[in-house]
Amino acid sequence: MNTTKASGFISVDPDQSPLKEVHNLLLSGVSPRPIALVSTISEDGVDNLAPFSFFNAFGANPPYIAFSPAYSGKDGSAKDTLLNLEKVPECVVHAVPYDMVEQVSLASTDYSSDLSEFVKAGFDTLDSEVVKPKRVKNSPFHMECKVEQIIPLGGTNGSGNLVLCRVVRFHVSEAVMENGKMMPDALDLVGRNGFNYYTRASGAALFTVDKPTGQGMGIDQLPDFIRESSILSGNDLGKLGSLEMLPNQDAVQKYISKLRMDKEGTTYTKLFLHGMEDLESNPVQGRKDIEISAKVALNEGDLEFAVHILMSLTDY
Amino acid sequence: MNTTKASGFISVDPDQSPLKEVHNLLLSGVSPRPIALVSTISEDGVDNLAPFSFFNAFGANPPYIAFSPAYSGKDGSAKDTLLNLEKVPECVVHAVPYDMVEQVSLASTDYSSDLSEFVKAGFDTLDSEVVKPKRVKNSPFHMECKVEQIIPLGGTNGSGNLVLCRVVRFHVSEAVMENGKMMPDALDLVGRNGFNYYTRASGAALFTVDKPTGQGMGIDQLPDFIRESSILSGNDLGKLGSLEMLPNQDAVQKYISKLRMDKEGTTYTKLFLHGMEDLESNPVQGRKDIEISAKVALNEGDLEFAVHILMSLTDY
Repeated sequence: MNTTKASGFISVDPDQSPLKEVHNLLLSGVSPRPIALVSTISEDGVDNLAPFSFFNAFGANPPYIAFSPAYSGKDGSAKDTLLNLEKVPECVVHAVPYDMVEQVSLASTDYSSDLSEFVKAGFDTLDSEVVKPKRVKNSPFHMECKVEQIIPLGGTNGSGNLVLCRVVRFHVSEAVMENGKMMPDALDLVGRNGFNYYTRASGAALFTVDKPTGQGMGIDQLPDFIRESSILSGNDLGKLGSLEMLPNQDAVQKYISKLRMDKEGTTYTKLFLHGMEDLESNPVQGRKDIEISAKVALNEGDLEFAVHILMSLTDY
Repeated sequence: MNTTKASGFISVDPDQSPLKEVHNLLLSGVSPRPIALVSTISEDGVDNLAPFSFFNAFGANPPYIAFSPAYSGKDGSAKDTLLNLEKVPECVVHAVPYDMVEQVSLASTDYSSDLSEFVKAGFDTLDSEVVKPKRVKNSPFHMECKVEQIIPLGGTNGSGNLVLCRVVRFHVSEAVMENGKMMPDALDLVGRNGFNYYTRASGAALFTVDKPTGQGMGIDQLPDFIRESSILSGNDLGKLGSLEMLPNQDAVQKYISKLRMDKEGTTYTKLFLHGMEDLESNPVQGRKDIEISAKVALNEGDLEFAVHILMSLTDY
């Protein structure tokens, strides 16, 4: 690779670098990527199935998705998916759950155009409602699509072809619906990372971030002593900055008086009260304990506690 | 939603369904989505930063990415990102690691056009080499981009706008490079799922699938008694189907003779030998033990063992 280094970063000019290196940068750096298992049909009626991870949704009104069957990096040949779509501009795009990943991997190999990957990968089929290509029953989420545009992105070895599709019908397995919602643990979808890596998007890998309500004051509105804390991380500051405003000193004092009365406090309350006691005799340690108690509270989602007790350090 | 039910699936016609429902189908079903933290600059020189999860790479030669700043579902208003790109068609797209996610969430709120989300979200900046917008130093992966095309996908409330960009410079933090490769655990990127869910694409969430070498024979080439096993899953069959051919009975007998000689066998070898002993007296249990031993071997990546011992069941 043609690279330079500055500020701890390696910089790469794609025009001066081998295709394989550029490809690997995209595959590793743009992760985790959702996987589209795409069903198409040839003019002669042969079913085709192939997975693509250069794929996403792009709009909801009306619903659009796009994926990219690239030309071979080795010989510039086109995939059957692309050849089929040029003749029959319809497809079904399926989500890929963990329990299908080996079969999908098998569908990714180049079988000759007259063989169906449905058969080779051992999938069950369902007819579509609007389009000609068949559906993969084993997937919990199907999108019947009409292709609106195929945009060539270079036209040579390793170049992409952006297939822009309008979704005309959705199908959701009843097995993944809970109270009318498709939940991630029930879907158990996988994403692609670089090299041979996949991500399983369920269980302990899942976490939630509450969308900021209204407009956060921003990290720039936090006092310097909070922003520059060696205990608090960028994520901690982000949570504090999502609050609409800082409490005033009167509110802080009231909050702390209430904490002192609370005999059954949380672990972080106890740590805070301990830190308060230390503040006079050992201010460095006391302060550290209080900042740690704020950090623990932020981890537990108790933003109110964190901001009030941090602001109690204003005069120290 | 205007829905029908068939074969265990709920079917939804997007033209007949509320925008919010269609949007939720896309957000949950197309997951996990990579996140683009996009830096732009206004004509007047005000920096803007906003995250988008309708985003992916689409080709490597030359490198292309696309993301979609949608019009507001409520009032159809355009995001500052889109307005800026219409005037200054350049951006920097950054990957989002776990330790930045709260700051990115803060950058997602609508600050007025004259405020910089760099400041609000507390990010450090770096100048770009080729384009005007600044880079977010806190991210480990930056792509400087020239916008080639903005494709409106509906032009109304909740409609997407596909921003197609050519990457002109990559920057990779040296901290995430191991032997010249960007490894997923070091990157520790997050993806978006439906609702408030995110996926952390590192640690135990990662797994690998070996790319099939050459061309697998396909699941259709496996004998019925393997394909119809109640013990083996679709993933197990996918692994077996990725083999180029089945071993013949001579190879199977030789393989099993060798297993019998092996005094220090694996757990699944022992389970297999146990099953062999049972085959005469209790064929149902013996067969089950052998299939389970094949399943365990497949889990451990020992495809050779699995296919040979399964094929030893041909005559039973």
